[in-house]
Amino acid sequence: MRTVVAIDAGGTSTRAVLVTSDGTCLGLGRAGAGNPTSSGPDHAVANQVAATAAAIETAPAGTPPPDLALLSAAGVSSWAVPLAREPFARLGIPRLEATGDVQSAYFSGTARPDGHVLIVGTGAICGRMRAGALVRVRDGIGYLLGDEGSGFWIGQAVARAAAADLDGRGPRTALTDAVAATLTPQDADPADVRDPRLSALVTRTYAGRAAELAGYARIALALPDDPVAQGIVAAAAQRVRDLAVSLVEGEDADDGPVVLAGGLLFDGSPLARPLHERWPGRCRRAEDGLAGAALIALRLLGTEGADEDALLRRIRTSIDAVR
Amino acid sequence: MRTVVAIDAGGTSTRAVLVTSDGTCLGLGRAGAGNPTSSGPDHAVANQVAATAAAIETAPAGTPPPDLALLSAAGVSSWAVPLAREPFARLGIPRLEATGDVQSAYFSGTARPDGHVLIVGTGAICGRMRAGALVRVRDGIGYLLGDEGSGFWIGQAVARAAAADLDGRGPRTALTDAVAATLTPQDADPADVRDPRLSALVTRTYAGRAAELAGYARIALALPDDPVAQGIVAAAAQRVRDLAVSLVEGEDADDGPVVLAGGLLFDGSPLARPLHERWPGRCRRAEDGLAGAALIALRLLGTEGADEDALLRRIRTSIDAVR
Repeated sequence: MRTVVAIDAGGTSTRAVLVTSDGTCLGLGRAGAGNPTSSGPDHAVANQVAATAAAIETAPAGTPPPDLALLSAAGVSSWAVPLAREPFARLGIPRLEATGDVQSAYFSGTARPDGHVLIVGTGAICGRMRAGALVRVRDGIGYLLGDEGSGFWIGQAVARAAAADLDGRGPRTALTDAVAATLTPQDADPADVRDPRLSALVTRTYAGRAAELAGYARIALALPDDPVAQGIVAAAAQRVRDLAVSLVEGEDADDGPVVLAGGLLFDGSPLARPLHERWPGRCRRAEDGLAGAALIALRLLGTEGADEDALLRRIRTSIDAVR
Repeated sequence: MRTVVAIDAGGTSTRAVLVTSDGTCLGLGRAGAGNPTSSGPDHAVANQVAATAAAIETAPAGTPPPDLALLSAAGVSSWAVPLAREPFARLGIPRLEATGDVQSAYFSGTARPDGHVLIVGTGAICGRMRAGALVRVRDGIGYLLGDEGSGFWIGQAVARAAAADLDGRGPRTALTDAVAATLTPQDADPADVRDPRLSALVTRTYAGRAAELAGYARIALALPDDPVAQGIVAAAAQRVRDLAVSLVEGEDADDGPVVLAGGLLFDGSPLARPLHERWPGRCRRAEDGLAGAALIALRLLGTEGADEDALLRRIRTSIDAVR
């Protein structure tokens, strides 16, 4: 029996699984933010190592040490791996490889080499897989330039709608009370002639990181009867659909799977529904990139001759069992 | 003859004028960023003092030292003045007061106590003056929550339109080449499967401060024949007009002046034109807040009995003469 470790290193948390060559997950570990671009290399590597060590520790006694670790993260170029190689070697893992979060999200949903993946969480990105490689992406260019219809996009629209309401410029909306309930009255600037809730929203928004606005997205989803909230969600769904259509029905279209990943594309979500309707039977949900990263890691060991569909099913089922 | 100093402390530069009690500007000084909120108190105070010292130095020999200095800046609460009092005392200025940038922009355009002011530069804010005091503002809540139709708003729309074009999601637009001409090809990530110009735009945007996107606003104004650029400018003009209308024609409307300030409301600008058309004869342009700050400073000395309209005209003319 040989084993691998697959690490899904995200901007807020990192998870690692130890998986055997037949696709059975034997250990799961968690740690804090592990993306080297957003969290800084030292901090990120420390969390990647902590999650990996925890995955190894939770495996049954006698489990052989991993032959390799595969690191999955957004925007990880070649520079991130050399930095982490030495700390992983100290854990007894002789080989470290990396993949993108788009690829691992795709392979969490399917083992097929050709298809598409749409990830809508804080950001939004659509990718085209061809012969197992990511050959094209659209959007995924961050909150200032794109991420159309994403959690940030929705959350910022919620905050702007609440602000316009409080400012007397926009329509009354139930979003306002829901946003105000998250604020601290003491954040209001006493010198501000504005509504104190607006003043507190301004203080809080600029004191934090811009990405925190994505936290307001759930408010829009929770108020389906409010016209303003409904308008924001409908506009987001339209943008997400347009993004996916532009690639899935683009020049090199096929009839392969469309993997839906990220926190806003859960089954039944108003952003996922139009996609299931447009491509019936082709959409499949991936909770995160962990299973796909494990599949990619096992491929590096060699999965020739294996039934990869069955392997992925086993990986997914056994990860769900230890979560 | 008595004199005052008025300081317009902005986020990118600070200007100070030394003005006599009859409204004659005798000295002008410049320095770097002077806003204590955006630049930090120490740095800001140093630039406020440097601009003031330069204004005093350029005045003719024998000019009496200023009785007071008035600091005008955005979002300056009471905390900023005590920090600066001691450094100003060392310059020989015994009294330091503060006002907001909205008030000084208003009084740069008119000496009348009742009216409105609309400032559209990097941000966008509208204010209502009553009996000489700022009693109400709308918007001015920054790039994440508001500033609808502002330079940031336009510049971000330009960058997003160019990004969507390069990403194959949006219409072809002349904005794209104009944005690309500002980029450094070496900023493109070689591991990125995207168009290298899009990759360079992404790198450059997130390496800088978000506010730098406002720099792209001039591109939209320079391409009046491009439908995408035209659409962005028209949408911005609509939002700016809606903002002004909501306050100028609001519940306590009057027929007082509407002062137009900020870099995007120059005479003939597509954002200013609809305002002149809506309120003919009422709109007047203020280049910046320097003249208004000088008028407010002179009021602190006492302008009872003076013709304030004539005083403001003299301040404006004599500042323009030394600029």
